[in-house]
Amino acid sequence: MPYPETAEGFMIKDQKNWQDFEKKEFKLKPFEDRDIDIAIECCGVCGSDVHTITGGWGECPLPICVGHEVIGKAVKVGKDVKTIKVGDRVGVGAQIQADLTCNNCKADQENYCPNSVDTYGAPYSDGTVSQGGFSSHMRAHEYFTFKVPDNIESSVAAPMMCAGLTVYSPLVRLGAGPGKKVAIVGLGGLGHFAVLWAVALGAEVYVLSHSPSKKDDALKMGAKHFIVTNEEKWFEPYAFTFDFILNTADATHKFNMPNYLGTLKVMGRFHCVGLGDEPLPTLMAQDFAGNGSYIGASHIGNRPEMLAMLDLASKQNIKSWIQEIPISAKGCAEAVTRVKDNDVRYRFVLTNYDSEFGDRS
Amino acid sequence: MPYPETAEGFMIKDQKNWQDFEKKEFKLKPFEDRDIDIAIECCGVCGSDVHTITGGWGECPLPICVGHEVIGKAVKVGKDVKTIKVGDRVGVGAQIQADLTCNNCKADQENYCPNSVDTYGAPYSDGTVSQGGFSSHMRAHEYFTFKVPDNIESSVAAPMMCAGLTVYSPLVRLGAGPGKKVAIVGLGGLGHFAVLWAVALGAEVYVLSHSPSKKDDALKMGAKHFIVTNEEKWFEPYAFTFDFILNTADATHKFNMPNYLGTLKVMGRFHCVGLGDEPLPTLMAQDFAGNGSYIGASHIGNRPEMLAMLDLASKQNIKSWIQEIPISAKGCAEAVTRVKDNDVRYRFVLTNYDSEFGDRS
Repeated sequence: MPYPETAEGFMIKDQKNWQDFEKKEFKLKPFEDRDIDIAIECCGVCGSDVHTITGGWGECPLPICVGHEVIGKAVKVGKDVKTIKVGDRVGVGAQIQADLTCNNCKADQENYCPNSVDTYGAPYSDGTVSQGGFSSHMRAHEYFTFKVPDNIESSVAAPMMCAGLTVYSPLVRLGAGPGKKVAIVGLGGLGHFAVLWAVALGAEVYVLSHSPSKKDDALKMGAKHFIVTNEEKWFEPYAFTFDFILNTADATHKFNMPNYLGTLKVMGRFHCVGLGDEPLPTLMAQDFAGNGSYIGASHIGNRPEMLAMLDLASKQNIKSWIQEIPISAKGCAEAVTRVKDNDVRYRFVLTNYDSEFGDRS
Repeated sequence: MPYPETAEGFMIKDQKNWQDFEKKEFKLKPFEDRDIDIAIECCGVCGSDVHTITGGWGECPLPICVGHEVIGKAVKVGKDVKTIKVGDRVGVGAQIQADLTCNNCKADQENYCPNSVDTYGAPYSDGTVSQGGFSSHMRAHEYFTFKVPDNIESSVAAPMMCAGLTVYSPLVRLGAGPGKKVAIVGLGGLGHFAVLWAVALGAEVYVLSHSPSKKDDALKMGAKHFIVTNEEKWFEPYAFTFDFILNTADATHKFNMPNYLGTLKVMGRFHCVGLGDEPLPTLMAQDFAGNGSYIGASHIGNRPEMLAMLDLASKQNIKSWIQEIPISAKGCAEAVTRVKDNDVRYRFVLTNYDSEFGDRS
C-alpha cells in the first residue's frame, strides 16, 4: 500500500535507541475534504524531536516519525480547501488539527484547543497516529497549512514553522516593538529567531547567554547588547530594565531565577518557550514581589501569527541561520545527536528528499 | 523623652517569644518638612506582622513594633505638606517612604521603589528603624499618608490600608470589571477584601477555598460561586474559565498547581499576594504551556490606587468585616496568635488606643 494510503519515513522504534532511524511505511489518516497532501521537500530538526525520541518528555507512541517544520508541495487538496491549490509550496508546523469550534479556536487561540492534534505522535479521532516530516508525505488540515511566500527558500522557511512561530507569537503578544527593551535568553534555534524577529519588530534586543562565543553572531543578527550570564553580578546593572524576557533556554533549571526576575520592569514577564525535561528552579512568591513580575510559558502560536511572521520575513528578507543535512537514516541520527549536544548553529534542516523518497510530484 | 522625640508601643524583643508584647518607648525618625505626625486611633493586624515576629520571613531588627494598617489623627504637619492638615483623620499602610525620584516612582510604581522604606523594621537614611502602629504615634511622609473619607469609620478603614490595597491593586491592574470572571483563592483577611472589591468593580467572582464553612460569608460578600478545592476534580468543570486568579492563600506550597493553572483562560495569570514562608510547589514550564498562563506576585499598591480604593469604598459604602480587640500586651498577643491559627473572620483591628496611650490630641 504505497501513497496515498501510506507514507514512508525515518522512524524510531525504541526511546532507548533514539539514534536508530529506520525507513518504514506508516498509515496516513483518512483523507477529508479540508485536507491537503504534501510531498515533503525538507524539514527542520527541533528540540521537541529530541525530547520526544529520547523520552525526556515521557513515553510516546512507537514507532514514531518526528519532524514538525515541514515544507513541501501540495499534491492533492480536498474539495473544501480554499486557501491552497495543487502545486503550491506550503509549510506545516507543530500542530496539524484542532476542533475549530471551541471558545479557544473561535478566539484565534487554536494552539490551546483542548482537542488539538500534534503533528506527530498524537491520535486522530479514527485512531491513526500522526507522524512527522522526516517522511515522504504529510496529510494536513488546511487551517494548519500555510502558503510559503515566493522569496523565502524552502530550507529557510522550514524552521520558521515551529521555532520561528514559537517565539514570534510571545514576542508580538508581549508587545515587542519600538521603545521596548527585550531580553532573549539563549541563542539556539529558538533564540536566534527571537533576535531576528524582535529586531525586525523594532525592539532593542539584549541577548543573555552563558556562552561568550555567540556574541558576534548575536550582534550580526541585530542584537544591540550581549550579556554573559556566567559573569558574577551580571544582573546588577540591569535592575528594572527589560519590558520582558523571552527565555529560549532548555536549562532553566540551572538558573538563579531571582537574578533574572530582578532585571524586569514592574509587571514584566519572564516567558519560557524552551520546555526542558527538568522542573523550574524552586521559586518563592517573594521572588516576584520586588517588581510584580511573572513567569509563564506558551505553546507555538496561532494561524494569524504564522501568516504575519511569514509576511514579515518576506518583506524584510529575513533568513533563518541554518545548516543543511541530506535526509537518510544516518543524516537523521547526526541531526538529532548534534541538537542534543547543542552542536548546531542555529537549526538543522533535512534536505534532498527526492534522493531518498523519489520524485513525488 | 516622650513624644515628639519618641513614641511608645507594644514591642517584641525575641522572635522565639513572639507572643510576648511589652510596652516600650522607641525613637521616631527626625521630623522633616513633608512629614506628618499621627496620634494612632486603631490598627489592623496583618499576616505580615505574624510572618515578621515569628521569623517566618527571616530575621528582623529587634525590638520591633509591628502594625501597618494605621488610622489616626494628624497632630503635626511639616511646612511643605499640602494634602493633609492638623486634625485630619488619616491612614498609613505598609510603605512609609520612597525616593520619589526614580523611574519606578515617576511611573506611579513607588511600591517598587528600590529605596522604599517599610512602615516597620526598615532603616531610614539617618539610621532610625521604622516602627509600626501597635503604638501611640507614627511619623509618616505625606505621600504615604491618606485622608480617610468621612463615611468610613476608623476601624473599618484600618485593614484597607494594607490588606485592602494589596488586593485592590492587582485586581485593577489585571482588569477586574464587568464581563470578567475572577477567581479568589482563600477567604481570609486579603481574600475577603478581594471579593468585596472585585464585586464592587463589576466582576463575576468565584471563591476557591478548602473550607466549605466559608461559603455563606463568601456569598454575603457578593461572590456568585463558591468552589471547594478539597473536592476531587474540582477543577475539571472550570478549564479555561477564569480571566485571572488572585491567590490570597498563605499555603500555596500545598497546592497542586496544574489544577489551578488549567482553570485560567489563555494567557491568564495566577497572581499571588499571600507571601508564605514556604517555596511555591515545584513547577515545570510545561505547566503553563497548556494555556499560555503565568504565575507571579505583587507588593501592596501605589498612591493613586489607595485613593481610588478609598473612594470606591466610600461611594459604594463597602465595609471591611472586622473583629475589634482593645490594644494591650494581652490584646496584641491574642490577635497575632489567632491570625497565625487562622482564627479570624476576617481581620482583627486593635482599638481603644486612648485607654493605653492617653488622649494625644
